Amino acid sequence: MHKIPVGVLGASGYAGRELCALVSRHPALDLAFAAAHARRGERARIAGRDVTFVAAEDAPLDQAALVFSALPHGASGEWVGHARAAGAKVVDLSADLRPGAEQPAASGPAGGAPYGLPELARDQVRGADIVANPGCYPTATLLALLPLLTRGLLAPGATITVNAASGVTGAGFTPRPDLLFAEVTEDYRAYGVGNTHRHLAEMRAVLDDFGADADLVFTPHLLPVARGILATLVVPTRERLADASALWREHYAHEPFVEVADEPPALRDVVRRNVARIYVSPAQGTRQPTLVVVAAIDNLVKGAAGQAVQNANLLLDLEETLGLPQ
Amino acid sequence: MHKIPVGVLGASGYAGRELCALVSRHPALDLAFAAAHARRGERARIAGRDVTFVAAEDAPLDQAALVFSALPHGASGEWVGHARAAGAKVVDLSADLRPGAEQPAASGPAGGAPYGLPELARDQVRGADIVANPGCYPTATLLALLPLLTRGLLAPGATITVNAASGVTGAGFTPRPDLLFAEVTEDYRAYGVGNTHRHLAEMRAVLDDFGADADLVFTPHLLPVARGILATLVVPTRERLADASALWREHYAHEPFVEVADEPPALRDVVRRNVARIYVSPAQGTRQPTLVVVAAIDNLVKGAAGQAVQNANLLLDLEETLGLPQ
Amino acid sequence: MHKIPVGVLGASGYAGRELCALVSRHPALDLAFAAAHARRGERARIAGRDVTFVAAEDAPLDQAALVFSALPHGASGEWVGHARAAGAKVVDLSADLRPGAEQPAASGPAGGAPYGLPELARDQVRGADIVANPGCYPTATLLALLPLLTRGLLAPGATITVNAASGVTGAGFTPRPDLLFAEVTEDYRAYGVGNTHRHLAEMRAVLDDFGADADLVFTPHLLPVARGILATLVVPTRERLADASALWREHYAHEPFVEVADEPPALRDVVRRNVARIYVSPAQGTRQPTLVVVAAIDNLVKGAAGQAVQNANLLLDLEETLGLPQ
Amino acid sequence: MHKIPVGVLGASGYAGRELCALVSRHPALDLAFAAAHARRGERARIAGRDVTFVAAEDAPLDQAALVFSALPHGASGEWVGHARAAGAKVVDLSADLRPGAEQPAASGPAGGAPYGLPELARDQVRGADIVANPGCYPTATLLALLPLLTRGLLAPGATITVNAASGVTGAGFTPRPDLLFAEVTEDYRAYGVGNTHRHLAEMRAVLDDFGADADLVFTPHLLPVARGILATLVVPTRERLADASALWREHYAHEPFVEVADEPPALRDVVRRNVARIYVSPAQGTRQPTLVVVAAIDNLVKGAAGQAVQNANLLLDLEETLGLPQ
Repeated sequence: MHKIPVGVLGASGYAGRELCALVSRHPALDLAFAAAHARRGERARIAGRDVTFVAAEDAPLDQAALVFSALPHGASGEWVGHARAAGAKVVDLSADLRPGAEQPAASGPAGGAPYGLPELARDQVRGADIVANPGCYPTATLLALLPLLTRGLLAPGATITVNAASGVTGAGFTPRPDLLFAEVTEDYRAYGVGNTHRHLAEMRAVLDDFGADADLVFTPHLLPVARGILATLVVPTRERLADASALWREHYAHEPFVEVADEPPALRDVVRRNVARIYVSPAQGTRQPTLVVVAAIDNLVKGAAGQAVQNANLLLDLEETLGLPQ
Repeated sequence: MHKIPVGVLGASGYAGRELCALVSRHPALDLAFAAAHARRGERARIAGRDVTFVAAEDAPLDQAALVFSALPHGASGEWVGHARAAGAKVVDLSADLRPGAEQPAASGPAGGAPYGLPELARDQVRGADIVANPGCYPTATLLALLPLLTRGLLAPGATITVNAASGVTGAGFTPRPDLLFAEVTEDYRAYGVGNTHRHLAEMRAVLDDFGADADLVFTPHLLPVARGILATLVVPTRERLADASALWREHYAHEPFVEVADEPPALRDVVRRNVARIYVSPAQGTRQPTLVVVAAIDNLVKGAAGQAVQNANLLLDLEETLGLPQ
Repeated sequence: MHKIPVGVLGASGYAGRELCALVSRHPALDLAFAAAHARRGERARIAGRDVTFVAAEDAPLDQAALVFSALPHGASGEWVGHARAAGAKVVDLSADLRPGAEQPAASGPAGGAPYGLPELARDQVRGADIVANPGCYPTATLLALLPLLTRGLLAPGATITVNAASGVTGAGFTPRPDLLFAEVTEDYRAYGVGNTHRHLAEMRAVLDDFGADADLVFTPHLLPVARGILATLVVPTRERLADASALWREHYAHEPFVEVADEPPALRDVVRRNVARIYVSPAQGTRQPTLVVVAAIDNLVKGAAGQAVQNANLLLDLEETLGLPQ
Repeated sequence: MHKIPVGVLGASGYAGRELCALVSRHPALDLAFAAAHARRGERARIAGRDVTFVAAEDAPLDQAALVFSALPHGASGEWVGHARAAGAKVVDLSADLRPGAEQPAASGPAGGAPYGLPELARDQVRGADIVANPGCYPTATLLALLPLLTRGLLAPGATITVNAASGVTGAGFTPRPDLLFAEVTEDYRAYGVGNTHRHLAEMRAVLDDFGADADLVFTPHLLPVARGILATLVVPTRERLADASALWREHYAHEPFVEVADEPPALRDVVRRNVARIYVSPAQGTRQPTLVVVAAIDNLVKGAAGQAVQNANLLLDLEETLGLPQ
């Protein structure tokens, strides 16, 4: 079978390397280039093959049918434009094109890029040339909420509380003293406390699309693990749901990458897999009907590179599950 | 100085060993015995001295002015009675005497044992013979909430969300397959989801004492660290507070073991110290005035053995801070 | 393709579960049963399929073409006999049949079972009905040494020093207080110091087969990681070798599961893969010509279950690499 | 009591911060300044007091009776000169003045600085103005060997094998991608393989001082822990020692900071303490009489800052154990 050439920009970071590995193992894709400015000329062994990084300037964009951009927020937009100009479809893993971005691209090559959460917007992605790959926290949070959002079951005026914890690869591969092993081991902390994390706007924008009448309070935490996100949501509902779990199961019955679990998920249930694993339970003893929803993903797979390949499959009209570890 | 003899029941678990270590270093206390049924006859090196465990049956209860019970929930009550009958004061670290316990001791030796959170009930503890040492999660949670509870600032009908994460020593020293290193490393999970954790009743009882008109939804999580609890609370308030941090600082101005911080606390700020470190911030962008409060403690110190020594100091009319690592 | 039915005894331990997972993904094998006495009747999810454990007594031994025994040392021998009597070939992961075992089975069904290190004894394994799967430390150590042993290059009267460190899964899944997360994290220690580890006899026996005139001093250590073994050997040689690395490369040129590396291997190079990765370097500044050899394996894969499948492939006359993660 | 003013150069690294903490708690020392070029003007909370870093250029060297230099190797020498010129005594934690340094200072202010391993050279340190604080690996290794070296018990022509593993703080606080949490967790590797580590020369020089007729092969490893070094030595001896342990006990009977243990030491036995804990056992089954010696230290305490304070106590004619955590 003739493989489709794809390229990766920002290939030396955690998401970029995960992308290179997924592409290398993908039965229908071929890695045309892996660009990483700071490491240009270096060779790395990824998924059993040797990859030589090139500078982005030297990347043969026109030889790729599709380009993944795992460049940093702010820097990605320009290269998305170059890739589109060269005729490539684009999956942008940065926040630049996502709803709620500070300077969303309303027009131009990326204007109106659909939000690539396939479980929410599969049909818009399928026909598109470019897609904004969701953030890791929003992926876990929104998949936890979709069954309620689509049915209008949130309590009016509710406060949705999202407490999420992420492994340190979520902070990227840039060396920072606070991410050194000796600083992270045996530690745990909250950050972005008080609704100041970038991902809030992205989640908020999707809630607004649904016309949700709800406050959202999001607090991320840094876990002493390499990979994985666990989001714990407390959600007031319009009424008590006789069988909340059944509702989630029904909603996701045909989704290949969402598992509704009988027990609260653990990171190890999802690490290295392109799935979200979700558990829902009513809160006992509350006057206000309230659900607790727990969602786990691998921040680098379903929260980044895996979802990007899922989107690429849709953009390229391939089977959506192709090349993805379930 | 003549030292006061104290004993420890349940001395071989994590809280028991921490107690033995604190007592060994305490300038006014002397370890009269360390009882640990399963390890009777064994010697351990604790805080630089050799401790030989005895069976509880062989513990010279009558030679202790005060007995700490770190026995398991359910088993502690009986021994508390024996210790009281032998004339010793008691600090009970089990849940048996706490508010909200399934079978609270309404009368008898332990009837009406005050709840030993000194920052809440110092005056009741000081005159007592017996005290119920709070649970680890309730300690972190209630210290985070007290400034609001005492001032009646909760929004009426509010839902207080408490997401907390604990190191594995919180689950005790009993070997369980799910607590083996290889099962916990690189993992993270929620448990007691849906308000089913034992500690909920303890927190709920204190809120009820304050007449708080609020739901409480509590979700604990298991962290891949040895020690520490971080509790993240989302709390709707009656009004927007101009300077929430100032309110917490004022409330705890004279408390030796509560720190109000300028940055969200991390576990490493509190581990091996008998302090709660608290940060408070308003949630941006919500219609309902809402605070996010983050509290960190060492589950074995301020959440167990350290607080027990703090209570013992009060029961024995010693300086409250004596022998405690700040 | 018709799959060959195989069974696993001792299926609930770490090696047993790894075996079930490998068999489940193996293109030519089918899991006929998974026996785990203590968990009989329980269901587990392994490699994406539901496995129900049976008691060993209820295991349909006669329906399996081959049985893996991951039972504890001492208990395995009897079941190996039952499996052989039922007509199944056997790969025994216990130490019971290995060279140097305390009571080696000289005759009977297991008498003279070849030592299943294929890189050493492939031809004997291929024609056999039963094979003794090597221990994890001996696998790493012997693969590090084979190029010297086969060429008689050890210095006469030499002392070979083997320092090895293993992840905690090497100690099995039985709950022991000293293997709890809180006891292992941030710790590291030696055990079996002074040549008292069981695996020494196994290595010694192979050295003796080669007529090696050398002492062997082996010191294992416990690492705070889940998986992986790194063995560091210091080996005096008969003469200075101009290019030691070339000698190892030549020796293993046709071995699918041994990699000779340009840099010292790390655990993460080999975890979840059925390979040994080896680095060799002369020691600078010594009068006695001396090599330092570092070998890394995954203790559960090349050090246990993966090698067992490699041996099963040989016993069943399948392609040796079938179903094994390289 | 009037406290003696001391300063710290290189105060923001791991050893520097440990020094500031030890000085802050020391009953006879007062922290006159803490210099850290890259963080000048910043404030840090160390051991319960606020420390403001100054640039080394602005450090009031002449106000310190003693200066600790925790500057990087190569950069330290110049500042040692400045501090001496200003009249301060100096403890240099860098490798610049140690035996075996590439360009040892034979003359000038630092010429002939004694090697500050008090258990080896206490008398030379006591009268000196400047001392070269030993490296972390040499401290563990040499304390393990001293009882043999001083008695001439090494087997003639022996090869001493030292395998040592260190926590990541040993690599310093400079952000390097390979020291990020996600790169180190669940990993383990050797480095400096083949006798290429800087510390070899330092150990070699001490062995030569003893006229030891022995090769030394040293292989360090990187552990996924924050703190601690464990060194495992295999040492051929001139004869079989009837009771090796007794020999070590006798040698160290009066040393306050060396413990001879009945069981192999673990990192957690020594972390945050200024001790070396040593275990010795004969190797069973070898023709050549051979000992296995295991030594554990905290690389930041007995391996760096603690030993530096021990040396400072000697230089300042204070009680050697003052202010040091045993």
